[in-house]
Amino acid sequence: MVKGKFITFEGCEGSGKSTQLRLLSEYLGKEGIPYILTREPGGSSIAEQIRKIILDGRNMEMCDECEAHLYAAARMQHLKDTVVPALESGKLVICDRYVDSSLAYQGEARGLGMEYIAAINSQAITNYSPDLTVFLNIPPDKAFKRKHGADKNDRMEKQGLDFHMKVYGGYLKLLQKYPRICAVECGGTKFETNANIIALLKDKGII
Amino acid sequence: MVKGKFITFEGCEGSGKSTQLRLLSEYLGKEGIPYILTREPGGSSIAEQIRKIILDGRNMEMCDECEAHLYAAARMQHLKDTVVPALESGKLVICDRYVDSSLAYQGEARGLGMEYIAAINSQAITNYSPDLTVFLNIPPDKAFKRKHGADKNDRMEKQGLDFHMKVYGGYLKLLQKYPRICAVECGGTKFETNANIIALLKDKGII
Repeated sequence: MVKGKFITFEGCEGSGKSTQLRLLSEYLGKEGIPYILTREPGGSSIAEQIRKIILDGRNMEMCDECEAHLYAAARMQHLKDTVVPALESGKLVICDRYVDSSLAYQGEARGLGMEYIAAINSQAITNYSPDLTVFLNIPPDKAFKRKHGADKNDRMEKQGLDFHMKVYGGYLKLLQKYPRICAVECGGTKFETNANIIALLKDKGII
Repeated sequence: MVKGKFITFEGCEGSGKSTQLRLLSEYLGKEGIPYILTREPGGSSIAEQIRKIILDGRNMEMCDECEAHLYAAARMQHLKDTVVPALESGKLVICDRYVDSSLAYQGEARGLGMEYIAAINSQAITNYSPDLTVFLNIPPDKAFKRKHGADKNDRMEKQGLDFHMKVYGGYLKLLQKYPRICAVECGGTKFETNANIIALLKDKGII
């Protein structure tokens, strides 16, 4: 019997995901709520070996389908080694990226198609669906502006932004499709966003 | 435009696949037919990195789903790096194991289900279907007897044979389902089996 809750965090580059995961961790620690914070790809021995192949700069010729399967392989192992045992011990599991990242990045932005990604991730989607997915909702063009300042925008490759806007479009489609995904507006300060996330988790009965 | 033909070889442990691949290679060389002999998993730089993770004896805790995805990842990369370029240059591609191995071993024998394996390998099945699959049709109990002699049979773990009989059962299902798979009887000598294979390849217009 699974006792804990499984929460995933999603968002585009620059959405402030790392900051928000840190602030939420601090809150959970302060409140004495048992939790683990983990991430994809990686989070267990075999999954980290797979992560190395994915991120190895010498593997530039990796095809999109190979990459998608490596993410799926690491995901299944990470579920078995890390996520499921923590849930069974009653902990709250907070995971930095999950299957929605594959759907948005590989499916939508790289053009493999969300159906293809959903098909190869059917086990994760069906048997290990998160109880709640927090989507940090800020378009990449605004996020980059906030991060780098308007004067540095010209350093960003146009293609880079196009890609990230496609990812964002993918997330918006997922938001329509899966009621488990909740968008958190993050136009304010990081503390305001943190408060929005905590309010959401309380509202959904997670904490 | 793909000019070459794509032939895969399948069979259980002890079916004599390696011997038959060697004999066929000798024949093709002698006849001056341009070909490459390759194998799964592996056959290209990234695919070999993935192969190492699959075969690493320290990775005993690898879950079946992770293994299945690693095979699929290596397969897609091997297709792109090795199989497709050879086909496009007009060569005959002979591949030692392909998607049917995943269906029989992981799908049937490990119990993941053939539908699950077919779903995650949909690209390979749909877009890179072999022109012909040669199935060396000998049940593992007979193959092991032939290989080791009746007196050594007791050294074979019972569970080992059960597993391989399940694999064989999986292959028989695939034989019913896919007309591209042709069974070659291999009850005779290795040269008789080689002659059967060459006759099949001629009959199907491959060589």
